[in-house]
Amino acid sequence: MKIRVRADLVYRFDPPTDAIYKIQVAHWPGQSILEERLTTHPTVDFNESRDEEFGARTLRAHLSGEVALTYEALVENGTLKGLPPVTIQHDWNDLPAEVLPYLNASRYCPSDQFGRFAERTFGGTVGGDRVLKILDWIKAEIDYEAGVSDTETTAARTFIDRAGVCRDFTHMGITLCRASGIPARAVSAYAHQLSPPDFHAIFEVWLSNGWWLVDPTGLAPVEGLVRIACGRDAADIAFLTTQGSCRLVRQSVTAEAV
Amino acid sequence: MKIRVRADLVYRFDPPTDAIYKIQVAHWPGQSILEERLTTHPTVDFNESRDEEFGARTLRAHLSGEVALTYEALVENGTLKGLPPVTIQHDWNDLPAEVLPYLNASRYCPSDQFGRFAERTFGGTVGGDRVLKILDWIKAEIDYEAGVSDTETTAARTFIDRAGVCRDFTHMGITLCRASGIPARAVSAYAHQLSPPDFHAIFEVWLSNGWWLVDPTGLAPVEGLVRIACGRDAADIAFLTTQGSCRLVRQSVTAEAV
Amino acid sequence: MKIRVRADLVYRFDPPTDAIYKIQVAHWPGQSILEERLTTHPTVDFNESRDEEFGARTLRAHLSGEVALTYEALVENGTLKGLPPVTIQHDWNDLPAEVLPYLNASRYCPSDQFGRFAERTFGGTVGGDRVLKILDWIKAEIDYEAGVSDTETTAARTFIDRAGVCRDFTHMGITLCRASGIPARAVSAYAHQLSPPDFHAIFEVWLSNGWWLVDPTGLAPVEGLVRIACGRDAADIAFLTTQGSCRLVRQSVTAEAV
Amino acid sequence: MKIRVRADLVYRFDPPTDAIYKIQVAHWPGQSILEERLTTHPTVDFNESRDEEFGARTLRAHLSGEVALTYEALVENGTLKGLPPVTIQHDWNDLPAEVLPYLNASRYCPSDQFGRFAERTFGGTVGGDRVLKILDWIKAEIDYEAGVSDTETTAARTFIDRAGVCRDFTHMGITLCRASGIPARAVSAYAHQLSPPDFHAIFEVWLSNGWWLVDPTGLAPVEGLVRIACGRDAADIAFLTTQGSCRLVRQSVTAEAV
Repeated sequence: MKIRVRADLVYRFDPPTDAIYKIQVAHWPGQSILEERLTTHPTVDFNESRDEEFGARTLRAHLSGEVALTYEALVENGTLKGLPPVTIQHDWNDLPAEVLPYLNASRYCPSDQFGRFAERTFGGTVGGDRVLKILDWIKAEIDYEAGVSDTETTAARTFIDRAGVCRDFTHMGITLCRASGIPARAVSAYAHQLSPPDFHAIFEVWLSNGWWLVDPTGLAPVEGLVRIACGRDAADIAFLTTQGSCRLVRQSVTAEAV
Repeated sequence: MKIRVRADLVYRFDPPTDAIYKIQVAHWPGQSILEERLTTHPTVDFNESRDEEFGARTLRAHLSGEVALTYEALVENGTLKGLPPVTIQHDWNDLPAEVLPYLNASRYCPSDQFGRFAERTFGGTVGGDRVLKILDWIKAEIDYEAGVSDTETTAARTFIDRAGVCRDFTHMGITLCRASGIPARAVSAYAHQLSPPDFHAIFEVWLSNGWWLVDPTGLAPVEGLVRIACGRDAADIAFLTTQGSCRLVRQSVTAEAV
Repeated sequence: MKIRVRADLVYRFDPPTDAIYKIQVAHWPGQSILEERLTTHPTVDFNESRDEEFGARTLRAHLSGEVALTYEALVENGTLKGLPPVTIQHDWNDLPAEVLPYLNASRYCPSDQFGRFAERTFGGTVGGDRVLKILDWIKAEIDYEAGVSDTETTAARTFIDRAGVCRDFTHMGITLCRASGIPARAVSAYAHQLSPPDFHAIFEVWLSNGWWLVDPTGLAPVEGLVRIACGRDAADIAFLTTQGSCRLVRQSVTAEAV
Repeated sequence: MKIRVRADLVYRFDPPTDAIYKIQVAHWPGQSILEERLTTHPTVDFNESRDEEFGARTLRAHLSGEVALTYEALVENGTLKGLPPVTIQHDWNDLPAEVLPYLNASRYCPSDQFGRFAERTFGGTVGGDRVLKILDWIKAEIDYEAGVSDTETTAARTFIDRAGVCRDFTHMGITLCRASGIPARAVSAYAHQLSPPDFHAIFEVWLSNGWWLVDPTGLAPVEGLVRIACGRDAADIAFLTTQGSCRLVRQSVTAEAV
């Protein structure tokens, strides 16, 4: 699917601070960037780097005052792997070594605390069936509602609050998958047909020797996703990280099939 | 320094469960394994893997009943890099891309919450001086005492408890360094002269374009450390991780210069 | 019902510390103490006080070394009010002023966080029906298992852990009732037929202008309970509170119908 | 001191919900209400009650839509007891029974976790000297800053955040006093010369057989305080509690010496 994405981010950095943006489309197998353009006002001389594992790109600079950044790209996002009907959950023994870290608890996903809940609630199912049961549980038990969570909200808290946004749904899903012995990792994306349009957070599970994308909010079709970054949880994939504080002036994000 | 290390671990896995050991000496530049031997009773057919980034080795198997594992190695651990007298703290801009994840908050190191404390308490210093101030603060403010913390204790809790063991000291140090804009990561090790002898947890900071080892407990000389694993925090470097529960029967760990 | 209760508590107070025992049978309407005897070794000159609201008695002393305390009583515990089949949940407007504090969140019962969960899960029922739905949920969802929780465990954590002991069940029940707008408070008791015998924790809800006892564990019949103390949660009804630390040497508690 | 106080509270209750206001001047020894007036728009038929222990008054009603409430009073607040220069800290043994609950941990004051910190930091002092050391520590270590905390913030979190408002300062002070064996409780008040004017939260400690007021923020003179309510922490003294949610439209609070 050809998708045109655009992000307009205006933030105020006062006092000046080191900042990291992760907003560019990833270099990822099956996903091709046909055109892209990055403009800032005032001009910023970014240090752009790219990680080996995920093809995620990072823009870094020391910023001060109000900085407006516009990123546009035209992307062929290929054929994304949604969860197939039949999948195998691997014993830990049979996982590639590089997948193992995604079994571990992380800042927002304290999966070490959810073993009993996962076994009580989803016990008797494994693999893709288990993931589907987890997604069904999230759909039934968590309300999509802005304003309940913030940037510090963990899956433990969302489990109590029973509400959150895409980030929280993703943390809840990752937590329950890892607690079920299934490697899971967070993905940030542009999402066609997401309403209201914004950066989207989804996750991937490792089954049948591959990573498969799932959207625990059910708000955007997997085929319309354009990958940006990937990591253990929101701590790794935030679209903007600053050492000091910064202030949102305005922001808009769009993704349209063309 | 030539060091002979040995770990005897007897655990009971009942019901059977997938288990991951990280107890072997790492393949790491400057560290040579002269001899090593792994024996188990009963015989276990481990899947041994090795991660690219750290040379850390992982033994995996599905275990049941009581399993006794003995690992012995003779190691030349080379010349370990303790913190040099003068170091530079890099702007985020100037960090290698692969170092960036070690700025992020992790399961046991919620560095995102400690920015103000770090600035109030250690403000005005940067780089190695800041790390030394952090180590001094830990030494002055945290008691080394077993029984206060457990495997779920985060640095936020240790900050309140004011007591813990090497794992907690390491999480506290990592948290305060990351909150200070300094990349930091956890290392597990065998430690010559550690008393009582056990697996040791320490950490590394990225300054002057390199990783430098520091021991926040001050219990073992850096030169006598033999690296095992490395990661974001204890979630990544635990010497034994199991999907279900397991029970300690007995355990001893030794490291002796020869 | 006539019930003979006995508690043997041997603790070590080293260094010496202020201590508060709440182990004596309460002076409570309908409950009569026919005989009682308190002995200690060595002799302790306790300050005994009695609170107005609950008739709960408190033994205080500065203790040092090993102290063995034996308390025995023969009690006619009257007819305890289990939840009647039909009850009214009062509007806050219609609650006696002295009942209002039992709507508030407390140390182990963060009911302020559970409003949405309570409404989603138990919505559509009020009063005794709601309390019964809460008890059913606890029975279905929480395992009675020692060793999962400790003295710091809150209902928020038990909600995640899905396991605990009578104290945790009581905190979970109080939390969900308060989150449902129903005043609830913790009660400590001797319990006939509790197995294994120990101090018991239960709770009371305010409905139809009265307090009604419920046992969320279902482990002991309400009719066989002998009240000791009452309060907001375990922070108020602990059988032993000390300013410094103390160490259990041995303890046994019994309650037998005669 | 004669003080004129006034609170204008406009909130929106939609959907309708039970609400409790605690905004009226307390009936308290030494404090006389010379005039007072309560008006609402639209007219609300409040259930007014008054608790025995604190003389605090509670206004309850089921509210819907936008409700504007204005409370005015002219008060002679008497001579408030600030901390005297020399005070005695009582052994637990010597405390009145009704003071004991104020030693216990509460929702926002987890004093059970701060024993070691209190002893390490304030050890060697007792009584009023200890309270003064605690107040000095708070002044030196916590920034008065709005926007860092919210209604769920506990003293454990403020201890990490190192910033908050009067409510957080009060929770921090209560927590450290209780952890030091000194009974402490929260007080809400109108405060002459508080800038910006608002409801104020302060606390009281029990020393030398009496309760003494302290203002951990140092923002308002103790002599200019007019008591409203009192309790274990903010859960007990909130000026507005609702079963469902409500929304602030506007609010102003003033207190002027006349």
